[in-house]
Amino acid sequence: MMMMSISNEPFALAHKEEYKIYGFPYSASTWRVLAVLHEKGLSYYPITVNLRTGEQKKPSFLSINPFGQVPVLLDGHLKLTESRAISLYIENTHRSRGSKLLNHKNYKKMGIETMWMYIESFEFDPPATTLTFEQAIKPMTGLKTDYKVVNETEPQLEKVLDIYEERLKISRFLAGNRFTLADLFHLPNIEYLMNTTTKRLFENRPNVHRWVAKIMARPAWRKACDANA
Amino acid sequence: MMMMSISNEPFALAHKEEYKIYGFPYSASTWRVLAVLHEKGLSYYPITVNLRTGEQKKPSFLSINPFGQVPVLLDGHLKLTESRAISLYIENTHRSRGSKLLNHKNYKKMGIETMWMYIESFEFDPPATTLTFEQAIKPMTGLKTDYKVVNETEPQLEKVLDIYEERLKISRFLAGNRFTLADLFHLPNIEYLMNTTTKRLFENRPNVHRWVAKIMARPAWRKACDANA
Repeated sequence: MMMMSISNEPFALAHKEEYKIYGFPYSASTWRVLAVLHEKGLSYYPITVNLRTGEQKKPSFLSINPFGQVPVLLDGHLKLTESRAISLYIENTHRSRGSKLLNHKNYKKMGIETMWMYIESFEFDPPATTLTFEQAIKPMTGLKTDYKVVNETEPQLEKVLDIYEERLKISRFLAGNRFTLADLFHLPNIEYLMNTTTKRLFENRPNVHRWVAKIMARPAWRKACDANA
Repeated sequence: MMMMSISNEPFALAHKEEYKIYGFPYSASTWRVLAVLHEKGLSYYPITVNLRTGEQKKPSFLSINPFGQVPVLLDGHLKLTESRAISLYIENTHRSRGSKLLNHKNYKKMGIETMWMYIESFEFDPPATTLTFEQAIKPMTGLKTDYKVVNETEPQLEKVLDIYEERLKISRFLAGNRFTLADLFHLPNIEYLMNTTTKRLFENRPNVHRWVAKIMARPAWRKACDANA
């Protein structure tokens, strides 16, 4: 596998290899940023940080991100960490390009979009990341899934998905009838969880199931995943 | 105690009692939003949700916020949850009023501010909230502090504060030389932790200590705290 820069897009690239992205193929947070870049039709230059050999905790990388995490975006002299902050930066600087991932003009709509972004961060991400780690990341690295943790964490995710199910009865996407960063932020964990038994929690809820199918099928997301093939 | 609307500000109030805030005096997340309202010189109409009697988990409140949490902002027909999303909404809709809490014109600066907001959410908040809960919230409700949890969590907070210490050597505030939402978001947990033995972790680090003193002394923050007196 290699993270590849986009080179055969059907439209001219605005910032060819301007962005440098430190990342790793199995890093869900890296995928999040790649999804945004593909949605906006932007290219990037990938720099692999090998999480399996602990490269992210070595002094050479800690000087880039003291928290020892990928992704990191370099845009000229600007260095950003935190996948969601990088995503917002890219969307803000390319508002009119590619997919429109936020409503920049209507503050009320932007407020609702921001709310659903924070619901992802504080409600969805904690149980989803735990379930992904136990059932997808640990087996990849030869560690054993702790099913006690899985069984304790699934009900937390179910509570969140019950609320999503009600919401998605009245709107096509979380923040309204358009796909936004609020939906996109969920994709990396969902991609992992759809290959685990936790999948049933999404499929048991018809509106959540429809939403998951819809966001997972986005061409930009498939391209972000293909970069890890 | 009552959460009071601001009525004696030295300048005209733009939105007198337009905002309704569901909150509770001891809710750190409620304080976060009150701090923003005071920074912007905006009034609000408080509606108390008694977290001690579990009012937030009753059907009447779950119909307002299915996650059963305060604060909730009502702005006319708009309803927002998540204190950080509410804060961003208020700042976005009142950019030129009161304290400027984000750089809306320079996307690179906004990117750095957004990054530090997410560092607060994903790095600072988890250990800080655990330490606040064990040492401040539990004793208030007659529960016993679990010092095993405190001892396990403090090193996690120390790692974050070590990085903050380095950062605050080169800038007065986290995102640069101006106070922004990135700093403000930290205040509720810090206010609680400065009354616990965890205080020493902040005071042991000279630049963190200076920063904490500076942000805690802001008149808007003192007013947000006084609303709980």
